[in-house]
Amino acid sequence: MTHRHPAQVGMSIEEIETPALIVDLDTVERNLKTLADALDGTGVVHRAHAKMHKCPALAKLQIAQGAVGVCCQKVSEAEAMVEGGIDNVLVTNEIVDPRKIERLADLATRASVAVCVDNPLNVPVLNEAAHKFGIMLPVLVEINVGANRAGVEPGRAALELAQAVDSMDGLRFAGLQAYHGSAQHKRKPEERKAAIDGAVAATRQTRDLLMQHGLACDMITGGGTGTYRHEAASDLYTEIQAGSYVFMDADYAKNIGDNGKPFAEFEHALFIYATVMSTSIPGQALIDVGHKAQSSDSGPPVVYDMPGAEFVKASDEHGVLKLSESAPNLIIGDKIKLIPGHIDPTCNLHEYYVVLRGDIVEALWPITAKGPGL
Amino acid sequence: MTHRHPAQVGMSIEEIETPALIVDLDTVERNLKTLADALDGTGVVHRAHAKMHKCPALAKLQIAQGAVGVCCQKVSEAEAMVEGGIDNVLVTNEIVDPRKIERLADLATRASVAVCVDNPLNVPVLNEAAHKFGIMLPVLVEINVGANRAGVEPGRAALELAQAVDSMDGLRFAGLQAYHGSAQHKRKPEERKAAIDGAVAATRQTRDLLMQHGLACDMITGGGTGTYRHEAASDLYTEIQAGSYVFMDADYAKNIGDNGKPFAEFEHALFIYATVMSTSIPGQALIDVGHKAQSSDSGPPVVYDMPGAEFVKASDEHGVLKLSESAPNLIIGDKIKLIPGHIDPTCNLHEYYVVLRGDIVEALWPITAKGPGL
Repeated sequence: MTHRHPAQVGMSIEEIETPALIVDLDTVERNLKTLADALDGTGVVHRAHAKMHKCPALAKLQIAQGAVGVCCQKVSEAEAMVEGGIDNVLVTNEIVDPRKIERLADLATRASVAVCVDNPLNVPVLNEAAHKFGIMLPVLVEINVGANRAGVEPGRAALELAQAVDSMDGLRFAGLQAYHGSAQHKRKPEERKAAIDGAVAATRQTRDLLMQHGLACDMITGGGTGTYRHEAASDLYTEIQAGSYVFMDADYAKNIGDNGKPFAEFEHALFIYATVMSTSIPGQALIDVGHKAQSSDSGPPVVYDMPGAEFVKASDEHGVLKLSESAPNLIIGDKIKLIPGHIDPTCNLHEYYVVLRGDIVEALWPITAKGPGL
Repeated sequence: MTHRHPAQVGMSIEEIETPALIVDLDTVERNLKTLADALDGTGVVHRAHAKMHKCPALAKLQIAQGAVGVCCQKVSEAEAMVEGGIDNVLVTNEIVDPRKIERLADLATRASVAVCVDNPLNVPVLNEAAHKFGIMLPVLVEINVGANRAGVEPGRAALELAQAVDSMDGLRFAGLQAYHGSAQHKRKPEERKAAIDGAVAATRQTRDLLMQHGLACDMITGGGTGTYRHEAASDLYTEIQAGSYVFMDADYAKNIGDNGKPFAEFEHALFIYATVMSTSIPGQALIDVGHKAQSSDSGPPVVYDMPGAEFVKASDEHGVLKLSESAPNLIIGDKIKLIPGHIDPTCNLHEYYVVLRGDIVEALWPITAKGPGL
């Protein structure tokens, strides 16, 4: 595989090769502080969701700002985080392949690693791996708090699964994973609040039921960039799992904040840097960013700071900008910034973040946890 | 970066780790032969579009079946092909960054490499690089034959640009790039034929105008999986550039063929292999293939050979299958095959093709030309 560096430290922004992901470090630092300040005094800690950025260097900045560790969705992501120096990882997902379970247990010999379950079939397999690697593996029961993706039903089903975990001598029941994914992107603040009110009620009832049966929930974890203030104010959740807040994307910017204005608690800190490669079709410019350099699953990227220019169409290696009369007169070689439509899968397409302080490259951060999730 | 192998040679299909791309080699060989047979006797050669598969091992099979070389869209793809042993590459795209142009010229010292232009500003920069590396660089003028993405207008604009190329002592005018991308996916055969009839007429008129001015078009190149028979029958095009025919995807399968039935000249040979990881929500199964393992830009993947199961929703690391009553009773750990919605960007997400002969792994082919296109 070729791993080309899109830039070198000390370069100015104009010298960065494209397509590249560029990070405004000042903005990242403001976003980190905004979240830390919001959680300060709540008693709720932050477990940063590293599936978003996939980058140990950035995870370290989050931990320096108070995060207790990271979340990952895949064993391969967790491995990349531990290899990158992160010593506390929760896999917020079910791991069912026996070989992946063995890798997870192996990783747990070198770092604090926990995992989720939502199926009793999974429990003895986890226990067997824990035995093989001589560990006591912390396991959370994932409950379905409304996203209808994974998780057992709150209440009795959760209790039975927690008891199954607790009955295994290689596993430690550690608490509840109660993340409401689809609530994050509900556009209206009252919709997000209603969804999390429901999640909190279901989780509290489950927590209480488990306590009545002698099972304590040390961790109750969930919450994302769109809803974290509700989970933090619940007097129930012990952790929130925000990820997108570091970079923000065009999709999150479509949410309406609690103040009735577009959600702007966090600022856009990540951009796709692109080059104009053709201007031969009147009224448009062709750039070198298509499906291979950005993911448009949540809508197209947004052209940054260039009124009159709109990203209207992506093909594999190309993006078409429609230019109105108010747009600047672009020529080949011009460079532009795009705000990604959806950051997580966009970051997955690149090898490096080019980290800028002002307009100068301060660092290149490898995106080591990228990949399909093998 | 971690490069995990999803399988080892000799394994059976059930042992392959997921998410993985699996290739049915028997089907690939039939698809290669179908295209070669269709072009046999036409006098038109095949230049395989390697931007689809990004894999020198597969390009070599195409060349063994008669392809004259490959097309790429990015310099990085061309470099990976030459490094992988392919000695004839046309970059069917404009390259405007001076550093990428130098890499292109450098590559042309080691292999037969040509490139396209659609802007006179680009011509002297290419010429300068050709001088620097002591080469005569073949350059095609790209004309816009209806896709409205790149390319100068056919006729006079193309003539002027070809003359500009011809006036440079480091460049050799090599012909016309006349690819109609959007025609490939027009659903009705008469729509595809009408689009290519227009492309052929515009290209022929341009070719004749250039000839009148003493400029011969050694190469006239274009055509894809959806339309290649029309270009091959044009008595004008010298090459066709099919790529998707090797693997086929769900989007191409939505085309209607000339016989009025779904386009089935080529068979599905590439599948995303997935594992069921949760069955906790009634009526659905959650699999480990989401945006990071497939690209849904042209629609979702299709569940292969499993009536009653439909891929209805992807999130970053998960895919939701809706299961009707006719679907099998899936449990965690079950493995399924998906036909990708769009192969090119899906292949870009993986490191390897797991190549199967029947149900046994015969090879792992690295996807070395993947990446954003740096």
